[in-house]
Amino acid sequence: MAKRNAFYAQSGGVTAVINASACGVIETARLHKKHIGKVYAGHNGIIGALTEELIDTSKESASTIAALRHTPSGAFGSCRYKLKSIEKNLAEYERLIEVFKAHNIGYFFYNGGGDSADTCLKISQLAERMGYPIQAIHIPKTVDNDLPITDNCPGFGSVAKYVAVSTKEASLDVASMCASSTKVFILEVMGRHAGWIAAAGGLAAQNEGDAPHIILFPEIAFNKEKFLKKVQQSVKKNGYCTIVASEGAQYKDGTFLADAGNVDAFGHKQLGGVAPTLAAMVKEALGYKYHWALADYLQRSARHIASATDVEQAYAVGKAAVEMALAGKNAVMPAIIRGKGKRYTWSIVEAPLEKVANVERMMPRNFITRDGFGITEKARDYLSPLIQGEDYPPYKNGVPDYPTLKKVRAPKKLKKSFRI
Amino acid sequence: MAKRNAFYAQSGGVTAVINASACGVIETARLHKKHIGKVYAGHNGIIGALTEELIDTSKESASTIAALRHTPSGAFGSCRYKLKSIEKNLAEYERLIEVFKAHNIGYFFYNGGGDSADTCLKISQLAERMGYPIQAIHIPKTVDNDLPITDNCPGFGSVAKYVAVSTKEASLDVASMCASSTKVFILEVMGRHAGWIAAAGGLAAQNEGDAPHIILFPEIAFNKEKFLKKVQQSVKKNGYCTIVASEGAQYKDGTFLADAGNVDAFGHKQLGGVAPTLAAMVKEALGYKYHWALADYLQRSARHIASATDVEQAYAVGKAAVEMALAGKNAVMPAIIRGKGKRYTWSIVEAPLEKVANVERMMPRNFITRDGFGITEKARDYLSPLIQGEDYPPYKNGVPDYPTLKKVRAPKKLKKSFRI
Repeated sequence: MAKRNAFYAQSGGVTAVINASACGVIETARLHKKHIGKVYAGHNGIIGALTEELIDTSKESASTIAALRHTPSGAFGSCRYKLKSIEKNLAEYERLIEVFKAHNIGYFFYNGGGDSADTCLKISQLAERMGYPIQAIHIPKTVDNDLPITDNCPGFGSVAKYVAVSTKEASLDVASMCASSTKVFILEVMGRHAGWIAAAGGLAAQNEGDAPHIILFPEIAFNKEKFLKKVQQSVKKNGYCTIVASEGAQYKDGTFLADAGNVDAFGHKQLGGVAPTLAAMVKEALGYKYHWALADYLQRSARHIASATDVEQAYAVGKAAVEMALAGKNAVMPAIIRGKGKRYTWSIVEAPLEKVANVERMMPRNFITRDGFGITEKARDYLSPLIQGEDYPPYKNGVPDYPTLKKVRAPKKLKKSFRI
Repeated sequence: MAKRNAFYAQSGGVTAVINASACGVIETARLHKKHIGKVYAGHNGIIGALTEELIDTSKESASTIAALRHTPSGAFGSCRYKLKSIEKNLAEYERLIEVFKAHNIGYFFYNGGGDSADTCLKISQLAERMGYPIQAIHIPKTVDNDLPITDNCPGFGSVAKYVAVSTKEASLDVASMCASSTKVFILEVMGRHAGWIAAAGGLAAQNEGDAPHIILFPEIAFNKEKFLKKVQQSVKKNGYCTIVASEGAQYKDGTFLADAGNVDAFGHKQLGGVAPTLAAMVKEALGYKYHWALADYLQRSARHIASATDVEQAYAVGKAAVEMALAGKNAVMPAIIRGKGKRYTWSIVEAPLEKVANVERMMPRNFITRDGFGITEKARDYLSPLIQGEDYPPYKNGVPDYPTLKKVRAPKKLKKSFRI
């Protein structure tokens, strides 16, 4: 096997552990210098490949690469850039192959969600068609936890832990003040299409009556009357009500709650968020004092409270991707498989990209309680192992010590630049 | 010295470490059983004293009391209830003394901010006037960090650490995607009157150009043009712009930015928050894609990322309060004093309540940069020691293991109930 270089890119929304996958890729590649030359990382994801902005990771020290394991966000830059279909934009794919050729890239590692699995597959197919040999391996990543085959997606466990911990802590706050102050607290979390992240809020509850008292999933049509009744019941029974609401919560007709028809100071329609919409509803109907929080990027960047299981798995899929490539695999993704038996175990298998690309996995209905406002034991059994363990980053001056990379670019070899 | 009981109550907005003060009080009292009998805690703060809802802390095990050190929020319940002046509502004060008498309470520990310092002082004065001997000690607590004399307030260090860590992590997220996605990120934090919490966001920056690029303080009149110019400069220079905005940010005329004239779906005026107001402004003027987060209660309940220094100090003021009471002190507060010299040291002194009550400490102007958008080295030197060290709670099932108290009530001794 001739020695060839590798290309690694981060794609789409970043997570608390995507760099742990990068760490797995680079450290494993460094163990196989006989077969893998340099690992180039795309500056800002696949855009870096198109524009030939390749970060030479060999210029980063072993300790910097090791530190990626505890660093959130995309260290090499990520992007929201979906390649068009081959039919619509062949030039883009040809450019990629051209760049890969110029830099003798024989391994392509693409770290992202469903869209990037699709891109990865297409590149593999086109390379074959063009007679350019490349091993294209997709590395799963998404806080949305919506990829098929894999039992869970690296990135999800940590956002799940963040949401569970935050729900628990904020609810203790509300509980201690509710007799004379705030009675309803709403935490809005990510998940436009699937309620996995909102469901994780349910892990805050350990006993009957514990918060959260209501979870709103995109999968369950929002019913205002039922919702308000449940809020009132909870306040009467527990003194307060904690609500974890998915940003994708929607009415039966598909209208998002976030699209509440609010108008800002300039008279523009405002996507106000689910939380303030619910808060206004509660205030209007029940008169309770409320507070709400919108976690936004805090939830997916919260490496300080990452799940140790998630970190381990994120690293493992990066490592496995390199090992699969070295074994001559192509158009596959390392998928996490849960062992049978009561104790949680997991291993990694190969999943063919044809079966991964463009398939979205939703929450099963039996993960949601009959009334639509909570999670079942089945959901709890599934979710709980994913948030186990703490994997704290090192601190310096009271804040996490996240490394700064040099990001030295490989000299460009192509004459033509490429406009994206 | 005859053996007498103690009463402890939590007051106002709770924090990540107010229970560490409770722990300091109860554990220290248990070491002095010769002089202090039971420690009763007010159920929901001072309301518990008025209604004779006294939690008998002797019914809680040593391990539960020890666990208070790592438990956020008010374990015994807190309240927003300000006693009126003695002239206006003597009956309330007389009731308190009556309850104290009935339960042989000789020590009154009141754990709160400026208002509770005032109440504590009044109770001490009235008790003296009524010939009922009591040692009234105020224990400082406030995330707002606005008490005088004490160098800082327990509760602040942890919210400061949360804001610094969150600002750093979310900014890494934005930085890694800004080339093709979000360019402006806004984190809204607490602090209606003083910018201490927003200032703490500045600790996320370790190097020139690091986020946050803009901090908005209530102390500095908001200037829209200057603000937008600064946002644009930051995006041009750094590729993105992180803004930490105090909820109390306001225009020159005192109008809060949060009061932006938004109207909700029901046509009601909505206090939309500073972050969405700023986001709309940025979008309108500069067209940048934005995201924003509202930390709300998450910030003050985030015991999972508490500052070790803060936890230690919160415990220490609780312990010192008991020791001061045993030394016969009255109408005082244990205050934290910073040692001179480069290395951060602190000790505890007595502060007379006359000098604490009703005095608000604002951020000095020289803590804010000349342009009004950042913190100075002076501020950094002051703030940095307060967020040092991590003091992680124990975890169970992936979430912090916070104890549930029994909250056994002491039998009531008074015939009359009291309506609050």
